[in-house]
Amino acid sequence: MPAAAFAAGVDELLAASVDATPRELAAALRSAAAVHASGRDRTVEVVWTGPPTPRLPVRLTAQALKQLIEGAHDRLIVASFAVYDIEDVALALYNAADRGVQVELILESVTGSGGKMTFEGATQLGRQTLERCQLFTWPLSRRPTVHGSAASLHAKFAVADRTCLLTTSANLTGHALGLNMELGVLITGGEAPREVVRLVDDLIAQGDLVGYTPVA
Amino acid sequence: MPAAAFAAGVDELLAASVDATPRELAAALRSAAAVHASGRDRTVEVVWTGPPTPRLPVRLTAQALKQLIEGAHDRLIVASFAVYDIEDVALALYNAADRGVQVELILESVTGSGGKMTFEGATQLGRQTLERCQLFTWPLSRRPTVHGSAASLHAKFAVADRTCLLTTSANLTGHALGLNMELGVLITGGEAPREVVRLVDDLIAQGDLVGYTPVA
Repeated sequence: MPAAAFAAGVDELLAASVDATPRELAAALRSAAAVHASGRDRTVEVVWTGPPTPRLPVRLTAQALKQLIEGAHDRLIVASFAVYDIEDVALALYNAADRGVQVELILESVTGSGGKMTFEGATQLGRQTLERCQLFTWPLSRRPTVHGSAASLHAKFAVADRTCLLTTSANLTGHALGLNMELGVLITGGEAPREVVRLVDDLIAQGDLVGYTPVA
Repeated sequence: MPAAAFAAGVDELLAASVDATPRELAAALRSAAAVHASGRDRTVEVVWTGPPTPRLPVRLTAQALKQLIEGAHDRLIVASFAVYDIEDVALALYNAADRGVQVELILESVTGSGGKMTFEGATQLGRQTLERCQLFTWPLSRRPTVHGSAASLHAKFAVADRTCLLTTSANLTGHALGLNMELGVLITGGEAPREVVRLVDDLIAQGDLVGYTPVA
């Protein structure tokens, strides 16, 4: 809940408490604070790449992704369709793995896409980063097809420790993180980050995401 | 705040209220309910296209987009990079415009992309829908370039009435809405939908989004 809403709630409470005893009022305030605290852990921030505007308090995509990666303690999951020209992200992933974070990358791949993707994005992360991460893709055999055209692994998101989720239109490319018009949200706390981790775990468990080695 | 968190808050309150008078307890509960209600208007739902999994309570992308479009009363903004094979969405947009909703479509375009995009997505919506919508794109002259490659209008989102926001990796294509792996979130209430509407208004005001006519 935003602070403004909490303040409004307290105002309302005080206005309704003219005939309350001090002890009642204290109990009501303690209660309101407890309820407020239980919801306070979830924030939603708009994340934007594109022309700056005067009044939008948004985070830039590159900045939000960097913050999420750097904030991961135990497990970091990053998914993307395209990967290109992102040395900063590769370094941040390397550093996360180096400090003991389990890093899982879910990427579109040459083999998984049945050759529809001709460029192996994972290789853009560099050997040293790749050696420290687990790579997953969607095997071609598990993809639905329509009119001979197989589905794509097109999701772009990042989750840190079941607590922080970035979903976005932005691929892991220099253009997407700094140049294009891209929109997403950074969600801290609440159920959504946990749900996405469970989704990934289930997709791995049922064979819709499998480990792979990038084509050189 | 999720119902579970509210219930936990009430449990905590009751546990701490052994020596409270009934009147104090009532005041505390009223207060908690008021604070809870003030935060209740914001929900975050994970939105997914891809293989189903047993335990994820997600919405499908097609379903979430349809719900958002059908729920719009005054103004509907839909942004996408690609548009292809989406008769259902075209019909939902037509119906929204027909019931008086101002429908604004923000799309990548042949001209805006400087020919990088060779297919005019907007035409996939059909003449009757297009006649009832305002079309916006990012003019080439306003796009930053790196090494001769211009930025893309790659954002994919929808906002209804400043109250409901879908941000996603999914383009307005049949594959994205029903076949690929795509992730997003549907946010109802709170600041994020309003912030995105302000962003669009500012981009239009400063000339980064301009009306256009699709190349036939």
